[in-house]
Amino acid sequence: MPIVTIDITKEGSTPAATAATAAEKAAIIRGVSQVLLDVLNKPLASTYVVINEVDTDNWGWGGLPALEYRRTLRDAA
Amino acid sequence: MPIVTIDITKEGSTPAATAATAAEKAAIIRGVSQVLLDVLNKPLASTYVVINEVDTDNWGWGGLPALEYRRTLRDAA
Amino acid sequence: MPIVTIDITKEGSTPAATAATAAEKAAIIRGVSQVLLDVLNKPLASTYVVINEVDTDNWGWGGLPALEYRRTLRDAA
Amino acid sequence: MPIVTIDITKEGSTPAATAATAAEKAAIIRGVSQVLLDVLNKPLASTYVVINEVDTDNWGWGGLPALEYRRTLRDAA
Amino acid sequence: MPIVTIDITKEGSTPAATAATAAEKAAIIRGVSQVLLDVLNKPLASTYVVINEVDTDNWGWGGLPALEYRRTLRDAA
Amino acid sequence: MPIVTIDITKEGSTPAATAATAAEKAAIIRGVSQVLLDVLNKPLASTYVVINEVDTDNWGWGGLPALEYRRTLRDAA
Repeated sequence: MPIVTIDITKEGSTPAATAATAAEKAAIIRGVSQVLLDVLNKPLASTYVVINEVDTDNWGWGGLPALEYRRTLRDAA
Repeated sequence: MPIVTIDITKEGSTPAATAATAAEKAAIIRGVSQVLLDVLNKPLASTYVVINEVDTDNWGWGGLPALEYRRTLRDAA
Repeated sequence: MPIVTIDITKEGSTPAATAATAAEKAAIIRGVSQVLLDVLNKPLASTYVVINEVDTDNWGWGGLPALEYRRTLRDAA
Repeated sequence: MPIVTIDITKEGSTPAATAATAAEKAAIIRGVSQVLLDVLNKPLASTYVVINEVDTDNWGWGGLPALEYRRTLRDAA
Repeated sequence: MPIVTIDITKEGSTPAATAATAAEKAAIIRGVSQVLLDVLNKPLASTYVVINEVDTDNWGWGGLPALEYRRTLRDAA
Repeated sequence: MPIVTIDITKEGSTPAATAATAAEKAAIIRGVSQVLLDVLNKPLASTYVVINEVDTDNWGWGGLPALEYRRTLRDAA
């Protein structure tokens, strides 16, 4: 009866997209549920997955809002 | 000082509704806080409840987005 | 398909107990699941409840570890 | 590698604001990450912070929706 | 920068085991991180996974502690 | 009424320690509650902090258990 919670930033994986698509979210749900079936033998029907999309302003990394920190990393590279 | 977090799908409980109503959310808060008072003697004033409404696209069950899985269950019945 | 997570301090509700008993935890599970059935018409079978017992050292309130803060409140009363 | 999740109500800290501002969220991220660096020596780059803004209807306190409970406290004062 | 939290009951996947093994937990971490790389192109290095093992007494399903509910399901089958 | 949840690995910050000390946890609680007072004007008395100490086996980073990934990083440096 696993419960999987996945926090991701609300961003597209391509320049055209501004958030994960329904197809991407379905693929995450399928993939993660399959891992729990493969490794722990948990039936798909008993796994819940919740995807929590978080505004980039609300995600901190490196002591900064995430987008700002990524810019810092890029500038340093 | 309990903290209760409740994840539900963003759906109405009646055909006309598209999400839990404010009255329903108030009833959940009241009911759950009362359970913690009754069972563990926690004062109402010390219990926090957070209701997290999740888009059905973001909720996985049975390895599928929740609505798709429910259709599968219905078709199998 | 609600998911309910309940954080409580690891303490007994009576002087003899050092933690919630199995019977108390079962009563919480029963009560909370019933609230979601009564209010949102969610079948018991689709609700998951996870109780997370937290050491009092790991719980902060009023800027202090919880037991210390409670002493402060009591002394102030 | 700490993960910090912060639930706050979606409200402004001034009468003009209806939610925490980007600057306030950045200050929370900075401050909380600094605490983990100061106390546990965790590098800023390894701390993630997620701020979860919760509608006041979805936040329970004292067995009531938060705003209603605050009114009760104010009236009792 | 995804954060994945996985709640599972503290049980073995074989009769001899009483909990997930370190190897099983490593396989879950590997598998889930890979899903996020494959689907959303998130680098492995930016994904955190936290596995939370929950005592079966602390897990509710069907309005009952999980083991009790499973017995009910088995008896009904 | 903020709720702050802090996941950290169960490790000491000095070679002699195997976990965060009570004093360190108290300092985290104090520091984080103060940030919410300073930035959002939230009274200390209304902030709850929960520190969740996670076994290093249960923490994934870079697709690996955390300690293994750190070794990889060190070897690569």
